[in-house]
Amino acid sequence: MSAYSVGVDFGTESGRAVLVDVASGAELATAVYEYENGVIDHYLPAPHDDVRLEPDWALQDPEDYVRTFQVTIPTVLAQSGVDAADVVGIGIDFTACTMLPTTADGAPLCTLEEFRREPHAWVKLWKHHAAQPEADRINAVAAERGELWLPRYGGKISSEWFYSKALQILDEAPKIYAAADRLIEAADWVVWQLTGTETRNNTTAGYKAIWSKQDGFPADAYFAALDPRFEHVVDDKMSRQISSVGQRAGELSARAAEWTGLPPGTPVAIANVDAHVAVPAATVTKPGTLVAIMGTSTCHIVLGDHTATVEGMCGVVEDGVIPGLFGFEAGQSGVGDIFGWFFDHAVPGGIHNLAGQGQISVPDLLEQEAAKVRPGESGLLALDWWNGNRSVLVDGDLTGLLIGATLATKPPEIYRTLIEATAFGTRAIIDAFESNGVAIDEIVACGGLPERNQLLMQIYADITGREFRLAASSQTPALGSAMFGAVAAGGAGGGYDSIVEAAGRMARLREESHRPDPQHRAVYDDLYAEYQELHDYFGRAGNDVMKRLKNIRARARAS
Amino acid sequence: MSAYSVGVDFGTESGRAVLVDVASGAELATAVYEYENGVIDHYLPAPHDDVRLEPDWALQDPEDYVRTFQVTIPTVLAQSGVDAADVVGIGIDFTACTMLPTTADGAPLCTLEEFRREPHAWVKLWKHHAAQPEADRINAVAAERGELWLPRYGGKISSEWFYSKALQILDEAPKIYAAADRLIEAADWVVWQLTGTETRNNTTAGYKAIWSKQDGFPADAYFAALDPRFEHVVDDKMSRQISSVGQRAGELSARAAEWTGLPPGTPVAIANVDAHVAVPAATVTKPGTLVAIMGTSTCHIVLGDHTATVEGMCGVVEDGVIPGLFGFEAGQSGVGDIFGWFFDHAVPGGIHNLAGQGQISVPDLLEQEAAKVRPGESGLLALDWWNGNRSVLVDGDLTGLLIGATLATKPPEIYRTLIEATAFGTRAIIDAFESNGVAIDEIVACGGLPERNQLLMQIYADITGREFRLAASSQTPALGSAMFGAVAAGGAGGGYDSIVEAAGRMARLREESHRPDPQHRAVYDDLYAEYQELHDYFGRAGNDVMKRLKNIRARARAS
Repeated sequence: MSAYSVGVDFGTESGRAVLVDVASGAELATAVYEYENGVIDHYLPAPHDDVRLEPDWALQDPEDYVRTFQVTIPTVLAQSGVDAADVVGIGIDFTACTMLPTTADGAPLCTLEEFRREPHAWVKLWKHHAAQPEADRINAVAAERGELWLPRYGGKISSEWFYSKALQILDEAPKIYAAADRLIEAADWVVWQLTGTETRNNTTAGYKAIWSKQDGFPADAYFAALDPRFEHVVDDKMSRQISSVGQRAGELSARAAEWTGLPPGTPVAIANVDAHVAVPAATVTKPGTLVAIMGTSTCHIVLGDHTATVEGMCGVVEDGVIPGLFGFEAGQSGVGDIFGWFFDHAVPGGIHNLAGQGQISVPDLLEQEAAKVRPGESGLLALDWWNGNRSVLVDGDLTGLLIGATLATKPPEIYRTLIEATAFGTRAIIDAFESNGVAIDEIVACGGLPERNQLLMQIYADITGREFRLAASSQTPALGSAMFGAVAAGGAGGGYDSIVEAAGRMARLREESHRPDPQHRAVYDDLYAEYQELHDYFGRAGNDVMKRLKNIRARARAS
Repeated sequence: MSAYSVGVDFGTESGRAVLVDVASGAELATAVYEYENGVIDHYLPAPHDDVRLEPDWALQDPEDYVRTFQVTIPTVLAQSGVDAADVVGIGIDFTACTMLPTTADGAPLCTLEEFRREPHAWVKLWKHHAAQPEADRINAVAAERGELWLPRYGGKISSEWFYSKALQILDEAPKIYAAADRLIEAADWVVWQLTGTETRNNTTAGYKAIWSKQDGFPADAYFAALDPRFEHVVDDKMSRQISSVGQRAGELSARAAEWTGLPPGTPVAIANVDAHVAVPAATVTKPGTLVAIMGTSTCHIVLGDHTATVEGMCGVVEDGVIPGLFGFEAGQSGVGDIFGWFFDHAVPGGIHNLAGQGQISVPDLLEQEAAKVRPGESGLLALDWWNGNRSVLVDGDLTGLLIGATLATKPPEIYRTLIEATAFGTRAIIDAFESNGVAIDEIVACGGLPERNQLLMQIYADITGREFRLAASSQTPALGSAMFGAVAAGGAGGGYDSIVEAAGRMARLREESHRPDPQHRAVYDDLYAEYQELHDYFGRAGNDVMKRLKNIRARARAS
């Protein structure tokens, strides 16, 4: 009998379902639902589109998530011709921290008429950046109290994370805070919608809500120090019952069965996070391999059999990626975004014309030309901080730098230099892990960026000195969710008993592999030494000119 | 009776004559001759175009200079309708150091059949850069011997200057060196052609051939230390008889009268240098005003009533610009060239399209947009070293740097930042002068660059904190030569008795003036402090990364 699993990946602009053959991992059908209300960052949706949002806000509509199930799962069933009865499990993954306030029975406050015009009642998307004052308070109070959990997060809690957002609700809309029986990750909320049962996954709890298997959440006294009304946020609004990824959350409810066309009772996996679920989908279930999920930014995940304190990592969570192992996360806040900036703002008309004549895209032409430049030959070097530095410096106020320009400098040389800079940034992260006992022997990447760019892969191999391979799937999060769906079914239910087993059967790498070229490595070692010197000079207070320029900029804008 | 003067300006690609009304300075006619053989930098002219030049060579054909006289002077006479008999004097200016070997009667060796295929027999143009090994030797031996003249030249003699080029002839073509009765600046050579008399002007002697009114040339022992055969270069190939600019070199010979259509006997001025002759043409004949001759690069000249040692200046020569005063020269090796690089290599297609739609040039559109950016608002800062740094660091191996880039950085912001960087470079030069007792109270600019760019002038005023004015003439060197032509005639001959008097009558500034905006100044003071810190860190051995990147580049290219 054939067995299939469905993975649903909730992204920033859309949700995507993939129907996968459990035995082989073959992706039989894919469907995408573009969220009707997309990212809500200027006005609330009609008829409340007279309510204007402050800058840096980013909301979503939870009904878009339900519509994702309603649209995509029936579509993949129809496309593939698979019998719904042969679907053995469902898994989901989500952006994080993406969170919302609900009633005790899971109704989002924003769906209730009385709260519909209240921005704080809606889903706060991961990239909602308006809670910086709260994040600053969270960090200041933690530092003051010497909270022991702070080093697990590279010394800094982000404005994007759970308590920053929760505290912003309390600060700015105490009535909403009071009305919320639950503050919950959207990841867990959609699983609740599928199963009728509230669960909390350990990945978002660990990486975004300062939870650990050993120590649980921060003490109530810490929360009280942030705001007396916040003292019991965990017991009042959350849950101390945390489930590990790889477990079953429950079974498909009758209502959700109707939405999706799947049989009631279909096993549903504990929710997961998009980057983290991609790791086993990229075949990685053991220590020693860095998974780089590369797109506009890069998320790095590596597994370890023991914990460690690593400068500038985003977090380490036991069982947070693969049960039984510690999952370390780090990140680069600008990668594809920097190349996109370059394409949009610094590629001269002549290159566009050449690309048009050659019927080739501008990025492809630039890649072709940049590939002809030998390592070191341009005399250029860059610091890849166009969007700040997440790891290892954890400093959003750092900015991009290009050095070595001459009158002979050509655009493909600059493009190559920007790629190299992001690779040096990755090497700095690898160095931080390795110098703290977390080994990294090879790199497996996934995401659209490396798939489209052979040169990038070779440069990363040359600069990191590691073999660089690529996941076979071009939708690793959705595949990973389907794999966790198969694990929720269990071996007896037509799936697998563990994610390691599922990864062994369902995940693959591409045949191609990029190995470091010894000659290139030598040149890049020299360039990396220069990168490090500039990195430390500008990033570790040798010269705080980047911050001062930002201050001057802020004053100029305010004047 | 009306009186007129002719100025001839010998440039890199062409020669230009202007016919000027001596009483008012009005420019009545202009004619340009594009050199038939232009800049000779790949092959010698036909029929010897099988002779290939080494990289970094740049030659000219002296017969192009004679043709300039033959073509342009008759043209301006015809255009203006002026009676040749009313022309009271001729002056010329030239690029420098542009030098050639000749026989004792002034015949360029390259015009003799036996030497015509020999590159070293031709004119070495100012930008002939192949004599760097000789310049290195000149500097090393001077430093070793503690030559007292070295500080007059900012501590370094350039590969572009006279002895570097002369020594290269000796090194590489000793037969040519031996055959040359004379090694002479082209400036002096064309005056020789006009008058039949060999003279040597003090401006090229002072700025390019290490001569001073007080000490004359370096000692023979110094030249002997460079090469025993070079010991008597001054007495064998040059002349110790140096004439000050503002004097009369002689009168037009019968042969030259035939070339030009002017009467034999017309007074001819001592030769001058293009940048230096522009100073009185920009009305400046006293200390306190910096003249900035702005184009692809900028040459700065300021007058002083006493000498001084100023870090990184190109030279100081008594009577070298205005008789009776010390002329200080400094320079920025890349200014308009950096903007040109930006326009060619970093302005996106979208801006070109917008400019096309608005029927405006790309530089004008960028200026318009950059003018909307307030000082400091971009958060960007640059070091203007795309073509190295002439003053004050005297280091051709420094390179360009841009810092502060974010994903929101726009091309007009980068353009503005590049303009600002060149203005900070000018301020660094002003600081060097002022801290050594050479006052600079205001700036007068000439050249195509400021004429076309209001924004640039305002930024320079804001950043330097000085009023910034513009010469009225858009061909100040040719006008300046005509002024010196009038001085060669003398008051009794229908001209003037001094260049100061001539400047008072013939030179003007434009009405418009750019004054520093106090609010902008405050922001730019903050940014200049950041510029200085980066300037010293990268330029004064805080971090020699720019040189190391150049070394890595050289190795990569050689591999």
